[in-house]
Amino acid sequence: MNIGIIGFGYWGTNLVRNFANLSGAELTLVADSRIERKQFLGKLCPAAEFTTNPYDITDNVNIDAVVIATPVFTHYELAKRSLTNKKHVLVEKPMSSDIKQAEELINISEKSGKVLMVDHTYLYTGAVRKMKELIDNNQIGNIKYFDSTRINLGLFQPDVNVLWDLATHDISILNYLMSEKPTTVQATGVSHTSNGIENIAYLTVKYNSGLIAHFNCSWSSPVKIRMMLIGGDKKMIVFNDLEPTEKIKVYDTGYEYKTDEDKTKILVDYRAGDIYIPKLETREALSLMATDFRNAVENGEKPLSDMNSGLDVIRILEASQRSIKERGKEVTI
Amino acid sequence: MNIGIIGFGYWGTNLVRNFANLSGAELTLVADSRIERKQFLGKLCPAAEFTTNPYDITDNVNIDAVVIATPVFTHYELAKRSLTNKKHVLVEKPMSSDIKQAEELINISEKSGKVLMVDHTYLYTGAVRKMKELIDNNQIGNIKYFDSTRINLGLFQPDVNVLWDLATHDISILNYLMSEKPTTVQATGVSHTSNGIENIAYLTVKYNSGLIAHFNCSWSSPVKIRMMLIGGDKKMIVFNDLEPTEKIKVYDTGYEYKTDEDKTKILVDYRAGDIYIPKLETREALSLMATDFRNAVENGEKPLSDMNSGLDVIRILEASQRSIKERGKEVTI
Amino acid sequence: MNIGIIGFGYWGTNLVRNFANLSGAELTLVADSRIERKQFLGKLCPAAEFTTNPYDITDNVNIDAVVIATPVFTHYELAKRSLTNKKHVLVEKPMSSDIKQAEELINISEKSGKVLMVDHTYLYTGAVRKMKELIDNNQIGNIKYFDSTRINLGLFQPDVNVLWDLATHDISILNYLMSEKPTTVQATGVSHTSNGIENIAYLTVKYNSGLIAHFNCSWSSPVKIRMMLIGGDKKMIVFNDLEPTEKIKVYDTGYEYKTDEDKTKILVDYRAGDIYIPKLETREALSLMATDFRNAVENGEKPLSDMNSGLDVIRILEASQRSIKERGKEVTI
Amino acid sequence: MNIGIIGFGYWGTNLVRNFANLSGAELTLVADSRIERKQFLGKLCPAAEFTTNPYDITDNVNIDAVVIATPVFTHYELAKRSLTNKKHVLVEKPMSSDIKQAEELINISEKSGKVLMVDHTYLYTGAVRKMKELIDNNQIGNIKYFDSTRINLGLFQPDVNVLWDLATHDISILNYLMSEKPTTVQATGVSHTSNGIENIAYLTVKYNSGLIAHFNCSWSSPVKIRMMLIGGDKKMIVFNDLEPTEKIKVYDTGYEYKTDEDKTKILVDYRAGDIYIPKLETREALSLMATDFRNAVENGEKPLSDMNSGLDVIRILEASQRSIKERGKEVTI
Repeated sequence: MNIGIIGFGYWGTNLVRNFANLSGAELTLVADSRIERKQFLGKLCPAAEFTTNPYDITDNVNIDAVVIATPVFTHYELAKRSLTNKKHVLVEKPMSSDIKQAEELINISEKSGKVLMVDHTYLYTGAVRKMKELIDNNQIGNIKYFDSTRINLGLFQPDVNVLWDLATHDISILNYLMSEKPTTVQATGVSHTSNGIENIAYLTVKYNSGLIAHFNCSWSSPVKIRMMLIGGDKKMIVFNDLEPTEKIKVYDTGYEYKTDEDKTKILVDYRAGDIYIPKLETREALSLMATDFRNAVENGEKPLSDMNSGLDVIRILEASQRSIKERGKEVTI
Repeated sequence: MNIGIIGFGYWGTNLVRNFANLSGAELTLVADSRIERKQFLGKLCPAAEFTTNPYDITDNVNIDAVVIATPVFTHYELAKRSLTNKKHVLVEKPMSSDIKQAEELINISEKSGKVLMVDHTYLYTGAVRKMKELIDNNQIGNIKYFDSTRINLGLFQPDVNVLWDLATHDISILNYLMSEKPTTVQATGVSHTSNGIENIAYLTVKYNSGLIAHFNCSWSSPVKIRMMLIGGDKKMIVFNDLEPTEKIKVYDTGYEYKTDEDKTKILVDYRAGDIYIPKLETREALSLMATDFRNAVENGEKPLSDMNSGLDVIRILEASQRSIKERGKEVTI
Repeated sequence: MNIGIIGFGYWGTNLVRNFANLSGAELTLVADSRIERKQFLGKLCPAAEFTTNPYDITDNVNIDAVVIATPVFTHYELAKRSLTNKKHVLVEKPMSSDIKQAEELINISEKSGKVLMVDHTYLYTGAVRKMKELIDNNQIGNIKYFDSTRINLGLFQPDVNVLWDLATHDISILNYLMSEKPTTVQATGVSHTSNGIENIAYLTVKYNSGLIAHFNCSWSSPVKIRMMLIGGDKKMIVFNDLEPTEKIKVYDTGYEYKTDEDKTKILVDYRAGDIYIPKLETREALSLMATDFRNAVENGEKPLSDMNSGLDVIRILEASQRSIKERGKEVTI
Repeated sequence: MNIGIIGFGYWGTNLVRNFANLSGAELTLVADSRIERKQFLGKLCPAAEFTTNPYDITDNVNIDAVVIATPVFTHYELAKRSLTNKKHVLVEKPMSSDIKQAEELINISEKSGKVLMVDHTYLYTGAVRKMKELIDNNQIGNIKYFDSTRINLGLFQPDVNVLWDLATHDISILNYLMSEKPTTVQATGVSHTSNGIENIAYLTVKYNSGLIAHFNCSWSSPVKIRMMLIGGDKKMIVFNDLEPTEKIKVYDTGYEYKTDEDKTKILVDYRAGDIYIPKLETREALSLMATDFRNAVENGEKPLSDMNSGLDVIRILEASQRSIKERGKEVTI
């Protein structure tokens, strides 16, 4: 299985490092428009060739699988061309710029029988897998809310707003952890640059069950925060991704409420108990993701971060963009 | 100057303690519907009498000033009756349940010449006063965003939602620190109780200048967070109220951006410099607030937390409630 | 049971507050050399009388029990006089200035049949009781080390060094938690004042089993640290007293070692597992201590913080002082 | 300038990475006894040859400079052979196993005119250089104490105790920052393994001026702490190496004391002011160290971490070992 990677920037470098070390696959070709990256590739993975032309990969008969790590607006075209040329495709998150493109790619993948997978790396982290396990084992109970903050002094993206850049991660986690499908989306934000692209934005997602999910994203914060709260009616989880090892805390904390007979008062029973910090699996998420892709290609196994999960993320992002344009109007999905 | 306090619950206890120690004023009467509180008052302030009837205070010819620390829905009636009976009034936050009531109270106060003041205690803290000083001295520059998180496992209020309970504090700080007036409000939230009162809610306030303010409030979080970020184009402030002494951090951090000539790219210059943690005044805020009220009554000085600032908070809260009802619609104020 | 308190300073105020609220006992008299404290007593506990003469308490036929919260060098004389006058005695930590005094007081107490108890308040905290429970239930295993840091910018005591002031707490905890008796003590420190009293000092206590305990104490640190590590061969405990609620963390962490056959290598198996943060009892420690004293007086129950535990603390403190004088020499106890 | 590196373990890997990228020098040969490391070298630095024989480097006429990253007990022999063969030498910390060896190496270096330098990498970090700058600019005042804690669940070294492994870092920082020379050393510790090598140890260093330095080192702590306090009579520094960016905090905190006239009381004036967190230089310390070595070889510049600073560290470590053996006796250096 020969692999080509298109895009050798910050994330592409991580992909090259991981696919170069992946057993059962050969990284043979890497494309980047900047010729000066050739030398660095020589150091990082001497076995791979370099090209400035992405079509040398998408159209190459010796390449079996294409990894796409380019700006979002190019994903659709490169993935489509690769799939059409009978190659398996792994595309960076978010999968595409809109739902239509994503649906079309899924359609081509299904017809061609070639794998289409999205790199939502977070799903492969020990922290997210532990949360999935806790929720699936019904230790948390019915989920009541999901609250995510992902802010720092970050790179302003020129083509997508801060939700497409940062919330993508958290939405993929939300979708992975929750079995229910969301019903409505609301978003608002502000752009402090002249191109009108939001650098601070807030997103709320609602569900029929009463579950509410909220995302606070910013490229303009002096402090870096990566925190997620998940509240169930049994227990609550706090996920602080900046903690070096103690990322997940499970609080045996909650409340039960009932209305008294004349319905004028809410009686709430609070409970604050022990806290439990599970040990997490520490294998590198990106390496697990690469292995998952290889297995999908080789054995036809459904990858964790498959094309439909990629589409579900796009659905929420596109709805959020519509909501922002309509001044925060609730958008049904 | 004789003072009566109506409401001897959690916060009323703090008020009794502070007014009992305030020089130039006598706390003579305290009202609470629960007769069993009488004994505790005897321990805390033996010099004060106790009554279960609030009108013993509002209608008492020997009382000059009334402090109201009862549930929100009673503020209007008690404050109105006190003002009408020619008493100065200090009312707990929020001032009233709606704008109309607040405007009427202000009207009565102006006609009667009696002080009407709202207890937005936070404005008297060393942290908020330091932020005011930094902003007024133009050390922060033009404010671009304001982001507040106030969450914990808190008491579910039976009559008002979590914004009226918690965001009130942060909105009073926002209004105090910003010279600009807000233009629109959006809010959304969820109620996990059968009375339909939101226990988790999110509020966004926008301004003509592009300033955006966001509030994340919850009674249902396993962790307690009290954090405020204020981003200016010169520096940024992080206010963490749970830090015992290092509450305010001023980051000499920011970015400048420009669009390149063909307008396809945003060029951003990041800057991360020193951090400065100013020493804060540590006198108890509530004691300063009580003194401010006494001075307002005695000398006619305009208090920091005056009735108009109380009204401005109500304006945003009422608009937030309308927005929640209209499913997050942007409401102009 | 009538109680008199001698010493109405910082800690005396806490004692007055607690004994005033203790059922089954009457706080009738408080002594302090500063006449200006009389007024404050009137506010805090109107039922108690005030005197500037401590002997009004020690010699008072109407007083059953005396609480002594004066400087260390006065403990012996006041306790002795009280015991001799057939009063029960609760004395602040450390019990006395040297072993001889402590032994004599214990002797008088035993002869007179009156209670002598030392206020090592920490033993009554939820955190210390939880650690005791974990160790006694053999969840931690054999204790290998105990490491305590108690530093801050603190009040320089004029009569005792920083170990007598601060390590006293930690030594009382050490003695309470460990069943083994220590064998040797070493200490060193430095005085930055002209009176030669150490404001920074380090203490090491050793045991026959190989257990080592170390104490780092300072009145001169810009940061406040209250941290204790307890390492067992099963699990390890971290006690951070500055955490508002999550004070105790139990790490399922450890290592097993063996020497390989030719004895040139140590093979160590590390294990890092889950972490558990138990919920702690939150009743005020001082109130539990006061109750324990009352029960000891009334029912003859042995209090948790009894006179012998007080003596054991003095033994280590006195040995530490000898070691400091002999330039860190190991002193056997 | 051709460079050979002996020892390609954990730290040797970092050295290979840095010397492979150092301009003005060629990494031509790497030695490690484990043949299986050859393949990894091929990936990391394809230009360098591999050997299992260290003498292929020390005796190689084409090699100008030798970098030694082997266990401590081999440093002396390898450095001596390299210097004798007219090679410049960079040796890992600590420089040697005892003072005699260190002095002999220095002697050979001086006679041969070849550079002998020790890799005390910490001296090249932004944090340590900032502290040096603050102290040299007299912003901290006269240093009164230095307190270092370096504990974690660490690798038990088979040949040296925890002070030789961990305190080495902090002693090199101490010596670099202080202009005064230490006079006495005391140490104590405990071994929980059958080889008698201390895995927990405490070291105290004293100076004529009254300055005291203390080091708490452990391989057996469930939590990782890397903290240093430096107290001056003007300001105090806290260096927390685990903070990602805010490593250095400068506290405008202190106290002045005087004795009152009858010398019975110490009057202390406390002062707690602002805190300042300077931005630190972020270039990799190891790269700066490698450059410093190259410059020393090429231009004869005295490196920051020169052989005499290496000897000064050994002096304290050797004295600490003597003190431990003599049960904590104070040892003069």
